[in-house]
Amino acid sequence: MSSKENRQLHLNLFVTPVGHHEAAWRHPDTDVDQLLDFSFFQRLAAKAEAAKLDSIFLADRVATSPSAVQYGAIGGYEPLTLLSALAVVTKRIGLIATVSTSFNEPFNLARRFASLDHLSGGRAGWNIITSGTDAEARNFNLEQIPEHAERYERAREFLDIAVKLWDSWERDALIRDKESGIYADHHKVHELNHKGKYFSVKGPLNVSRSPQGRPVLVQAGSSQDGRQFAAEHAEAIFTAQQSFDEARAFYGDIKRRAAKAGRSPGHITILPGICPIIGRTEEEAREKEAKLVELSNPAYSLIMLSNRVGFDLTGYPLDGPMPQLPVKEVRGHQSRTNLIVELAQRENLTLRQLLNRLAGGRGHRTVTGTPTQIADMLEHWFAEGAADGFNIMPQLMAGGLEDFLELVVPELQRRGLFRTEYTGTTLRDHYGLPYPENQFAVKPASQAHY
Amino acid sequence: MSSKENRQLHLNLFVTPVGHHEAAWRHPDTDVDQLLDFSFFQRLAAKAEAAKLDSIFLADRVATSPSAVQYGAIGGYEPLTLLSALAVVTKRIGLIATVSTSFNEPFNLARRFASLDHLSGGRAGWNIITSGTDAEARNFNLEQIPEHAERYERAREFLDIAVKLWDSWERDALIRDKESGIYADHHKVHELNHKGKYFSVKGPLNVSRSPQGRPVLVQAGSSQDGRQFAAEHAEAIFTAQQSFDEARAFYGDIKRRAAKAGRSPGHITILPGICPIIGRTEEEAREKEAKLVELSNPAYSLIMLSNRVGFDLTGYPLDGPMPQLPVKEVRGHQSRTNLIVELAQRENLTLRQLLNRLAGGRGHRTVTGTPTQIADMLEHWFAEGAADGFNIMPQLMAGGLEDFLELVVPELQRRGLFRTEYTGTTLRDHYGLPYPENQFAVKPASQAHY
Ligand SMILES: Cc1cc2nc3c(=O)[nH]c(=O)nc-3n(C[C@H](O)[C@H](O)[C@H](O)COP(=O)(O)O)c2cc1C
Ligand SMILES: Cc1cc2nc3c(=O)[nH]c(=O)nc-3n(C[C@H](O)[C@H](O)[C@H](O)COP(=O)(O)O)c2cc1C
Repeated sequence: MSSKENRQLHLNLFVTPVGHHEAAWRHPDTDVDQLLDFSFFQRLAAKAEAAKLDSIFLADRVATSPSAVQYGAIGGYEPLTLLSALAVVTKRIGLIATVSTSFNEPFNLARRFASLDHLSGGRAGWNIITSGTDAEARNFNLEQIPEHAERYERAREFLDIAVKLWDSWERDALIRDKESGIYADHHKVHELNHKGKYFSVKGPLNVSRSPQGRPVLVQAGSSQDGRQFAAEHAEAIFTAQQSFDEARAFYGDIKRRAAKAGRSPGHITILPGICPIIGRTEEEAREKEAKLVELSNPAYSLIMLSNRVGFDLTGYPLDGPMPQLPVKEVRGHQSRTNLIVELAQRENLTLRQLLNRLAGGRGHRTVTGTPTQIADMLEHWFAEGAADGFNIMPQLMAGGLEDFLELVVPELQRRGLFRTEYTGTTLRDHYGLPYPENQFAVKPASQAHY
Repeated sequence: MSSKENRQLHLNLFVTPVGHHEAAWRHPDTDVDQLLDFSFFQRLAAKAEAAKLDSIFLADRVATSPSAVQYGAIGGYEPLTLLSALAVVTKRIGLIATVSTSFNEPFNLARRFASLDHLSGGRAGWNIITSGTDAEARNFNLEQIPEHAERYERAREFLDIAVKLWDSWERDALIRDKESGIYADHHKVHELNHKGKYFSVKGPLNVSRSPQGRPVLVQAGSSQDGRQFAAEHAEAIFTAQQSFDEARAFYGDIKRRAAKAGRSPGHITILPGICPIIGRTEEEAREKEAKLVELSNPAYSLIMLSNRVGFDLTGYPLDGPMPQLPVKEVRGHQSRTNLIVELAQRENLTLRQLLNRLAGGRGHRTVTGTPTQIADMLEHWFAEGAADGFNIMPQLMAGGLEDFLELVVPELQRRGLFRTEYTGTTLRDHYGLPYPENQFAVKPASQAHY
């Protein structure tokens, strides 16, 4: 990491059962049974591991609707369930699950991630989200999603408690002396006695300290609240960036905020999302892209976009402009909504054009081209301060993932930009992150003076 | 099931990493690493499956304390995490996880069990508990565990919602027609729009209908509230019964309540817990028992008993009588507390004697003997209306489990009391339970008239 030549990029695979393009399930090569076929996910994880990727990642949303499932390939596994199963059929690759702080209790969450970290030998990561839609709130006793700032405030308290729970067992608390009958050193197992605005949690956790101490903390919010939260707490950041300039500005902003918060900027890995369509020739790639556009269904895309921006767009003419959203603070997914509105305005897109632009990656950067073209783009962003690595989001899983792993990854390896072997065993190792200090541990006297 | 000769008993294995005896971890044969060693659980599940057991089961509690971990082998996996992993390395055996209705949200729970049911091909079961200790409440924003009746009221509403969520996708809702782009028939995916005393949940679930329709519903409360709840909703019942007479009375009571509630008594499998210590001779068995008593630690047993009865017994003289518990409604684990108090009074036990009686199975029936003696006891309870099968709780996992599977199960098979092959693939098949009707499904006109 120290010399510039040795700096290597990180690759996360954003897993969906059929692909990131909204129409991926309709593609002739797609097997729709994949949604609930564990052996498919097992093969996929094995391939990603063989290519030495840092991690695989599952997104999450806690609602759907009859109108969404009419067109969309929805209804698969809850992420931690699937990753728990994948943990025991993989060896090295990291396993990142999304769980919302708005609809869970810290004790339950801390426990499940500690369990996954044990089960996987230290490969768990948590994508911390606050959720952003009323549909989700309505499955959890609310009428409306709480205000943006309030969600992040709850997220801060939630994370503080979770970290304390992970710290509640010191690393060397276990004694397990059969002779004396002492199982653990009770001075090294701590109550929290947390009483805050949103939660009261006594602790300790009922899972002993896991291999990584705590899961790798991942965050994906890009609003002001989201950036500040990420800069203070996240160890990896997913982000949707349309252009190199925007990505570089975001990258610089996060690293500066991190430094200001007293953190080492090298301990935050920034991973913009890339949705590739890869062909051996440019023409082949364009044909694949055209096929997906042809299979797209604007009725479905409109529902998805409406959910995303929190405003009902169905009924608006497809060949007219994107309507003005009512002027108010965006309550839901703030930065993504802004990105979409800006994209439509900047390029003066009709609603239909906008839908096509979003269909492949919901606002993430889409790229269509040859392996070399794609590797060039990744290298450019990486070398010029716009990324520490990438969140790979194949538009089509069948074929699209293999194309990336078999054609682009080797090219990155040839360029010396990506590992050819794992050097560590934990997800922290892969991302070059330190083992976390324990806030409850008393330093030995000899160390305490330095 | 129809003729008496063909009636066979059911066997569930109550899994703990080291054994049900409080001192099991201190036994020379025990490997304490087992708590977090997945390969141990995998071997254990494989053995239970090879013996054709109906299911394995994990209990749960959402709290611990520094004083408990000082002596007790505590700090292992969260149950659904472990069972998700076991689902993909087993083929036939049922997987029952305990989750509390007092500290979870119905949407999250319904989703995780639907996911596990998909992952396992229809082998999920849910042990529905309401939890019973203040220590647990204090990890979830409360000072005290809610009143007994209130917990069961919440449990009823919780279960009602969970079942509706599992029913929210009809069995034939998936269309997945690539040509038309219709993924699901939106008339067969239902919102709940539930608004109740404890919860508001809109639905539908975001997991499609699972192989069993819903997990097998298991319950283990034996208070009046618990019995009534079980009789109305449970498909299998775990229960602690000290004697044949008590077990038979309980069995009759539940079956009568079930009939009164309009259910078929054959669709509720009653499984008293049995904690065996098995020797090839009676003497060998007694020696094993003595060894465990010798390893017991009254200080730890007192903490555990105090937790269980919700009253601090530490400091009371071990060789005096069990102190009177303050006369008030038992808020926590009602029936177990009563069982313990009655046992101490009936047999006039000192505190130390009581602790030894409880150390092997916390109030479950302990039996020490030869395979034949144990098989005799099981047959007696089964044939004479006290049980439909048993919840097997080996006091020692190392050795104790194998003894049961290799010595007692074959004896039960020889007597024609237990299957020698699985005849179905789902947990419902093993327990002879029907596939559940869907409350949202409209019956075709031709059927609706009958
Ligand atoms: C790669 C990536 C993955 C995301 N995954 C999820 C997810 O699974 N669930 C979710 O609700 N939001 C997800 N988000 C959205 C973010 O959590 C966040 O709400 C969004 O970026 C807007 O953040 P902001 O409100 O701070 O601007 C994801 C974002 C990115 C960039
Ligand atoms: C075999 C068995 C397993 C149980 N597992 C749990 C458990 O995992 N967690 C828990 O809190 N209670 C558990 N219980 C306790 C019951 O859920 C219930 O609280 C207890 O039997 C008292 O019920 P009552 O209050 O209705 O009398 C279990 C009981 C039995 C018989």
